Amino acid sequence: MGKKISLKQEVLGIAAQAQEAYRGSFGLTAGKKNRVLARMAGALLKEKNAILRANRKDIAKAKAAKMPAAFLDRLSLDEKRIRGMADSLSALMRLPDPAGTLIKSWRRPNGLMIRKVRVPIGVVAIIYESRPNVTADCIGLCFKSGNAVILRGGSEALHSNLSIYSALKGVLAGEGLAPGLIQMVPSVDRKAVDELLKLDAYIDVVIPRGGESLIRKVVSLSRIPVIKHYKGICHVYVDAEADLNMAENICFNAKVQRPGVCNAMETMLVHKDAAARFLPGMIKKFTDAHVQIRGCPITRKISKGAVKAATQEDYRTEYLALILSVKVVGDITEAIGHINRYGSHHSDAIVTDGDLQAQRFLREVDSACVYVNASTRFTDGYEFGMGAEIGISTDKLHARGPMALEELTSYKYEVRGNGQVRR
Amino acid sequence: MGKKISLKQEVLGIAAQAQEAYRGSFGLTAGKKNRVLARMAGALLKEKNAILRANRKDIAKAKAAKMPAAFLDRLSLDEKRIRGMADSLSALMRLPDPAGTLIKSWRRPNGLMIRKVRVPIGVVAIIYESRPNVTADCIGLCFKSGNAVILRGGSEALHSNLSIYSALKGVLAGEGLAPGLIQMVPSVDRKAVDELLKLDAYIDVVIPRGGESLIRKVVSLSRIPVIKHYKGICHVYVDAEADLNMAENICFNAKVQRPGVCNAMETMLVHKDAAARFLPGMIKKFTDAHVQIRGCPITRKISKGAVKAATQEDYRTEYLALILSVKVVGDITEAIGHINRYGSHHSDAIVTDGDLQAQRFLREVDSACVYVNASTRFTDGYEFGMGAEIGISTDKLHARGPMALEELTSYKYEVRGNGQVRR
Repeated sequence: MGKKISLKQEVLGIAAQAQEAYRGSFGLTAGKKNRVLARMAGALLKEKNAILRANRKDIAKAKAAKMPAAFLDRLSLDEKRIRGMADSLSALMRLPDPAGTLIKSWRRPNGLMIRKVRVPIGVVAIIYESRPNVTADCIGLCFKSGNAVILRGGSEALHSNLSIYSALKGVLAGEGLAPGLIQMVPSVDRKAVDELLKLDAYIDVVIPRGGESLIRKVVSLSRIPVIKHYKGICHVYVDAEADLNMAENICFNAKVQRPGVCNAMETMLVHKDAAARFLPGMIKKFTDAHVQIRGCPITRKISKGAVKAATQEDYRTEYLALILSVKVVGDITEAIGHINRYGSHHSDAIVTDGDLQAQRFLREVDSACVYVNASTRFTDGYEFGMGAEIGISTDKLHARGPMALEELTSYKYEVRGNGQVRR
Repeated sequence: MGKKISLKQEVLGIAAQAQEAYRGSFGLTAGKKNRVLARMAGALLKEKNAILRANRKDIAKAKAAKMPAAFLDRLSLDEKRIRGMADSLSALMRLPDPAGTLIKSWRRPNGLMIRKVRVPIGVVAIIYESRPNVTADCIGLCFKSGNAVILRGGSEALHSNLSIYSALKGVLAGEGLAPGLIQMVPSVDRKAVDELLKLDAYIDVVIPRGGESLIRKVVSLSRIPVIKHYKGICHVYVDAEADLNMAENICFNAKVQRPGVCNAMETMLVHKDAAARFLPGMIKKFTDAHVQIRGCPITRKISKGAVKAATQEDYRTEYLALILSVKVVGDITEAIGHINRYGSHHSDAIVTDGDLQAQRFLREVDSACVYVNASTRFTDGYEFGMGAEIGISTDKLHARGPMALEELTSYKYEVRGNGQVRR
């Protein structure tokens, strides 16, 4: 053992190695990447006993800390979940490699030929919480798209993450690839994250995945660009010209099918001309499904006082639970205004048979994904046909909405001339 | 006069008005935008005396502070420069409006129709120094692309910027548009910038334009995503298989044609097999043009000690002047390694007749713009055929290289269904 190095130096070393490995990897072909992904999938299965042993350590610690059942479920691995991770890596083999593809090309009057070509972003840092499968997914997505990746998982899953990471990183050496392409910050010291977020000279982008407080912390500390969403306060607006059966199905699905996720509905808006016909049946259906309603005064009147009153704070809250705010609006302008003011610019839907209303809603709702006559629950890389997902962005820069391989690329301009100089 | 509001409240008010104006502007057609641009061009000409009066105040202050001649030149306006600003606004009318255009669309097996559509980013803040024409250019580019803009110019050009801003903003009211679409932070207090950079709830992106210290300050303070380039340390690599006449023309152009700009060459790399044939003539040509050379040991030997020695620090320096580092390299691998290590990932060129070397250079040099057999001086929105330029990015996220109207857009997903819910 050499002399003890500081945390700062350790994190710097990890980032510098990642960048060096990235710069050395430009010659990687799609065929080679796919062979490595196949070996990674195999490595997970081969190492499954070691991974399960490591996971049991994390579970024991979480149980001792009396963490809730949902937390333990997210943290737990079993053979089936490990097979799921391996399948995801294999699935990446079938997706096209975005790096190197031509976006557009044109010739200038002076003869210069300009090609705008997709390239990997470079070094991607992922800061995440609890679910160990994120480790394998992010390694696979970053590797396939040609990026080096630096992972920093939560301390609650440390042993699980390290064992998955070791299995996958082990494949690199056997394929003659630089180990720096896949990096993990092994320290549970929170200062390691602070140091990592200063290294804008080595890391090109940070993607935080987890609760809002984690993401706010990353944004406030980072000198590196961050792609993120804080939360999903998603709306369904039931228009006066809606098919009310369709509206009931969509609203029920958006709220109840999986309430703990960012694309679930948190507020339902109803046009005043539809409220009396729509709300009584809809509220009964929600109540039967144990959804607690918090309503505006008109909603409460229609429900004969059977629902609690909604506050301004309710309209800004991501419940992630079987709770729903309901508000009756005077017209589509009020609905759009409410969504842009109280929402999180994630996913919002209108149910209507009116073309004009649909067009206005699509244009004026300032969100990543805007739906006409469909559930907000479709905001997802798999559901959009991207084959995978590294996260969802409510930012407007670089990537917005579901992100997968293409969103892990940048571009460069390749310019060919025959001696052109500037006059 | 009401009660005095704090700087913090003033800046918050400016940003909130910009966002509200942006959200109210989704119905703006391309025709309407172009009519407004025409009136803006007219307003500059109509107000030219007021603008020149304001500019004289800034010039008097700069002269009193004994600012250098180049500074005074950048700051100065005359009738011709005002006409140039008006012409730039008129030129924007002829460029296509990127907002609302379809990027791609596809149908999912469940019948959902997904359209990925360009939209304005939202609220764009520009923090810039000295040249007053930036005020008109940025207002025009942001307006044409459908964004609200918040300008914060340098104190040295305060009067000039305010007069240009007033003339252009005055057009909005006459066209029934919200005045918040074009905003300026009128305070010269530096704390105003600090406050502005905290407002990530209202501002979507910050583009700093100016010296490296300004840009570093913005990046270190901002909670809002920043698109930027710190500097341009651009290289030309003369390969062993280069046409040496072409190489001489390109290198001379890249260094001498306009040495004070970010796409000028700062370091020339020469393959060892070309050095003895190429360097003596090239160095004489540079020396005749008053370029001071700082060379590696081989360069110094070839020039018989007539040039100064280059240090490691020289290879990391953006001279922005008639100074050039010259280094002889053993092969293309060393050239690419040098560029990726010491460069600023802006613009780099190879001169070669060898296809393999050209391909390797294009692929492995990790820069926004990579050239084969052309001068680095072409990295520019106009030269690339974009018709305008709001800046150049060496970032890899969102926009890389020259940025114009399309780079001032984001996208959203518009999804149409007929009742689809998630299973």
